[in-house]
Amino acid sequence: MRTITWDDEQKQLKMIDQRILPAQFEILAFSDYQEVAKAISTMVVRGAPAIGIAAAFGMALAALNSKARSISDLRDDLELAGRILNEARPTAVNLSWAVSKMLAEAAQVEGDISDVKEALLSSAKCMADEDVAINKQMAAYGAALIEDGDNIVHHCNTGALATVDWGTALGVIRLAHEQGKKIHVFVDETRPRLQGARLTAWELSQYGISYDVIADGASGFLMRTKQVQKVFFGADRVASNGDVANKIGSYMLALAAYDNGIPLYAVFPTSTVDLSLQSGDAIDIEERDRDEVLDIQYHNRQVCPADASARNPAFDVTPHRLISGLITEKGIVYPPFYKNLSQIMQA
Amino acid sequence: MRTITWDDEQKQLKMIDQRILPAQFEILAFSDYQEVAKAISTMVVRGAPAIGIAAAFGMALAALNSKARSISDLRDDLELAGRILNEARPTAVNLSWAVSKMLAEAAQVEGDISDVKEALLSSAKCMADEDVAINKQMAAYGAALIEDGDNIVHHCNTGALATVDWGTALGVIRLAHEQGKKIHVFVDETRPRLQGARLTAWELSQYGISYDVIADGASGFLMRTKQVQKVFFGADRVASNGDVANKIGSYMLALAAYDNGIPLYAVFPTSTVDLSLQSGDAIDIEERDRDEVLDIQYHNRQVCPADASARNPAFDVTPHRLISGLITEKGIVYPPFYKNLSQIMQA
Repeated sequence: MRTITWDDEQKQLKMIDQRILPAQFEILAFSDYQEVAKAISTMVVRGAPAIGIAAAFGMALAALNSKARSISDLRDDLELAGRILNEARPTAVNLSWAVSKMLAEAAQVEGDISDVKEALLSSAKCMADEDVAINKQMAAYGAALIEDGDNIVHHCNTGALATVDWGTALGVIRLAHEQGKKIHVFVDETRPRLQGARLTAWELSQYGISYDVIADGASGFLMRTKQVQKVFFGADRVASNGDVANKIGSYMLALAAYDNGIPLYAVFPTSTVDLSLQSGDAIDIEERDRDEVLDIQYHNRQVCPADASARNPAFDVTPHRLISGLITEKGIVYPPFYKNLSQIMQA
Repeated sequence: MRTITWDDEQKQLKMIDQRILPAQFEILAFSDYQEVAKAISTMVVRGAPAIGIAAAFGMALAALNSKARSISDLRDDLELAGRILNEARPTAVNLSWAVSKMLAEAAQVEGDISDVKEALLSSAKCMADEDVAINKQMAAYGAALIEDGDNIVHHCNTGALATVDWGTALGVIRLAHEQGKKIHVFVDETRPRLQGARLTAWELSQYGISYDVIADGASGFLMRTKQVQKVFFGADRVASNGDVANKIGSYMLALAAYDNGIPLYAVFPTSTVDLSLQSGDAIDIEERDRDEVLDIQYHNRQVCPADASARNPAFDVTPHRLISGLITEKGIVYPPFYKNLSQIMQA
C-alpha cells in the first residue's frame, strides 16, 4: 500500500489520512488541486518527499480539470495552480521542486491540450515511482552505516508515510532490519504533532522493528548514558553548505549527538537540496497554528490554561557542523559539505 | 495560598493536587505518612523543594501517629517512615535531606515522647517557612540578572507549586516582573507530564506575566534565531562539581543555550546540593512509568499504537560546563564550581 496513489478509473488522487493514524486507517480521494493544497496544509499528507509528489498530482489534476481551450490558457491555469500549491507549506523545497518540474514539463510538451494533460499525469506517476526507487537507493547507502546491535534515535516520521513508499531515514533503518541486523529505535514522539508517537511507532510495529517511544527531551539523556549509537533524521530543505532544515527539535537532537560523539545522518533525496541558498539561515521556517501546541489532552483533561498562548515553529535548522553525513540517492556526502554537496548534485 | 500547609485543628497535611491542575483546583488532606509517600510518588506534589517539605510533614505525621511507648520505639518508627518516604522518589536529594533533618531532630530532642512529637511538627513548620524565605532570597539574587526586555526560556515548573510558596527559577522571573521589568517567558511544555504547559502556564497567567507555551524541541530554534536572552531552570540534585540533575530535557536545553552563547542559570536552595557526589554521573535517575509517555490524547484520540513501548527517564544531568551560574539563597556561584560551590556551602 502506497501512501499516495493515482486511481486511473476515478481520475482521483488517493492518500492515507495521516491525521488520524494510528487510531484509524482511512484513504481520502482528491479530485481537484485546491483540495490537494488543503490536504498538504492541513497535513493529511506530510513529509517532504510525499508533499512533493502530492503537489505533482495536484498539478496533473489542475491540468485534467482545466477548461482551457488553448495551450497558453492551460499553462496559465497551471501557473495559478502551482502558486496555490506552493503556498500550502513554505519550508519543504520538494513542493516547489515538484511544481517547477511539472511547469517545465507543460512548457516543453509538443502537441495539443490533451497531450499536455496526458504528459503531466504521466510525469506525476513517473515521479511517484522514482520516489520509491530513490528511497531504496538511499536505504542501500545508509543501511551500510548501521551495525548489528545499534540503538538508533529517530526524529519525526520519515517512513513510507512521509514518502510515496519505503521512506528516507526510516527506510535506511528498515533496510538494516531486513538485512538481519538487530537494531532498536528510540522514537522521538515529536511534539507538537506527534508524528513519531503516531506514525513512526505505527510503521515500526508493522515492520516488527523493536522500538521505544521517548519524549523529545529524553534523547540527550540516552546519549549521555551511552545507550545510543547513531541518529538518523530526514530533511525538508538543505542549503548548499549542508545546513538541514527539518522538523522542530532536530537541531537540539543534533547538539546532543555532537556533544556525545554520536554520528548523525540526514537522509533525503537530492530534490530536497536548494543550492540557491548559501546557508540554512535563509530557509523560511513555517510557524503553524498555536493550537497544535495547546490543544492537547492528557488523562482526558485539556492541558493548558484556557487563556494560554503558544508559539509553534514547525521546523528548525541544524547547522552542518553538527552533521556527520548527508545520505542521498547519489551517495553519502561527507564534509566539507559546501564543496561535496554541489559536486554530487552535478554528478 | 501555599502549595503545602499544615492544618493544626485536623492535624492534617494539606496539599494542592498538582495532577489535575489547571482544569481543577483541589486540596487533598493527608493523615499519615504512607499517604504522603504515595502523594510524592504519584506526583500529587512534585518539585524538589516541595517534596522535601512534604516529606518533613510526613515524618511529623509518623511521629504524631506513632503508638510507641518509648522514645527508642518512636525513633524506630521514624526510621521506618524515613525509609519509606525516601523511596518515594530517588532523584531529588531534598527528600532525603528533609528526612535526615527530621531524624537528627528526633535524635537530639530532650524530654518525653510528646516533646519529640511536638518538636518534629514544629521543625517541619519551620522548614516550610524557611523554604519560602530561601526562595525569596534566591529571587533577589537572580532577578538582578534579568534585564528589561528579556525573553526567557523556562523548563518544567519551578514556581510556587514546586515549593511551599514563591518558587525557585520561576520565583526569580516573578520577582523581575514585580520589579517592573518587561519580560516574556517561553514555557517549555515539558513532556511527558507537561508541568510547563499545565502548571507554569497557570502560574504565569495568575501573575500576569507574558508567556508562550512551546514544544520542548522549539527552544533551540528560538535561541538560534536570537529570540531568547536567558534560560532559567531548577534542580533536583546538584553534585559538588556543579553538574545539575533536573527534569528530563534540561540537558538538551542547556546545549542549545551554550551553542548560542545564551546565559543559563540553575536556581535551587543549598538543600539540593549533594556534596557527597563528585559528579552528576553518580546521580540516580528515576525512570517512571512508560504510560506517562504513551497515555496521551490528541484531538480525542489515543496517540500511540496499542502495542507501543516507551522509555521514560524523568531527569537528566546537565554537565557544569554548560551552566553560567548556580543561584542559591547564599548567593550566585560562578565557575569553577568544584571550588566555589563547596565554599558557599560552608559559608
